[in-house]
Amino acid sequence: MSYFITFEGPEGSGKTTLISKVHTQLSKSHEVIMTREPGGIGISEMIREILLAEGNDMDERTEALLFAASRRQHLVEKVIPSLQAGKIVLCDRFIDSSIAYQGYARGIGTEAVMEINRFAIEDHMPDLTIYLKLDPEIGLDRISSNQRGHNRLDAERIDFHKAVVSGYNELSENYPNRIRTIDASQSPERVLEDTMEIINQYLNQEVNQS
Amino acid sequence: MSYFITFEGPEGSGKTTLISKVHTQLSKSHEVIMTREPGGIGISEMIREILLAEGNDMDERTEALLFAASRRQHLVEKVIPSLQAGKIVLCDRFIDSSIAYQGYARGIGTEAVMEINRFAIEDHMPDLTIYLKLDPEIGLDRISSNQRGHNRLDAERIDFHKAVVSGYNELSENYPNRIRTIDASQSPERVLEDTMEIINQYLNQEVNQS
Repeated sequence: MSYFITFEGPEGSGKTTLISKVHTQLSKSHEVIMTREPGGIGISEMIREILLAEGNDMDERTEALLFAASRRQHLVEKVIPSLQAGKIVLCDRFIDSSIAYQGYARGIGTEAVMEINRFAIEDHMPDLTIYLKLDPEIGLDRISSNQRGHNRLDAERIDFHKAVVSGYNELSENYPNRIRTIDASQSPERVLEDTMEIINQYLNQEVNQS
Repeated sequence: MSYFITFEGPEGSGKTTLISKVHTQLSKSHEVIMTREPGGIGISEMIREILLAEGNDMDERTEALLFAASRRQHLVEKVIPSLQAGKIVLCDRFIDSSIAYQGYARGIGTEAVMEINRFAIEDHMPDLTIYLKLDPEIGLDRISSNQRGHNRLDAERIDFHKAVVSGYNELSENYPNRIRTIDASQSPERVLEDTMEIINQYLNQEVNQS
């Protein structure tokens, strides 16, 4: 059996570290791959270069369409073949990131961003999504202590970060079966423990049903 | 008053030559710009490079999303500012090309391709679309006589070309007010004459209404 598990949350929520630990644990008993867009896919890497290019005046909807295009190619070239090979795919960010960042925080609107992403992923929604929920202020403190101190975070960035978190909160309320919320203010050990409990519960339940 | 006029049709229909002549004629009495995607827009040019890159295995939906992203940026950076400056914008290919090529001929489906393009253009539909209608066989004959003879056009390409033309025909039936059909099998002089008649009729009618 193959499963598609995505990890979501704002910056500073500890997503990347967590995925790596989950990968280690699950690899003991399953075939698992860990990936993130653009994931080494040539076309998605080229799109990423456009998204990161400095000094251009990219429209927000252009940005959302490019993220959806990159997502599509990564899905088709990497995620789907891995699922077809019976693997568990752990993916760092997926459709919910676009909804939270472009839909909510950039203000394009969730339904519009959902639509272009539905076009991109068709019926390949994640089976399970781990949402690392964190108070926006704590997330920002964590980022800034990794960088150059709190004062470089201007007001606009704080508002944007808060809007991202609100977006995730609303998504997790709208899709409570798929999106499982973890309290990311806990210690990394507890966050891992809670995450593995949810994932193992999910995997056992699926095995029993099939 | 500003007007957004697009030109559509299959390869070999004489679109590009026609637009240039229409531009010359209209410029005598109006402020007119002539453009086509990517239209010299940095981001759209970068997207075009991805679309044209050899040897990659681009998924059809990725392609459709990239065309929509390029269209969005060209619209925002070039078309809308020109319209706001009161100009007539003549654009070589726009949303209907995506519907005919990706929606019909590539088989993604017209409604799905329409949706991502609605996201891209919002309410900036063309005011008027000139559709150069041509029997697929004649279009292919014209292309091949410009190139290396008919035999390089394999069966797949002919079927694709026919599907594009069917797509355009259906669009022109569905949007008879916006899309005005010109018989492109006529002499270039007659095609220009018919086109200018439609455009002038449209411009006069709009002036009288306003």
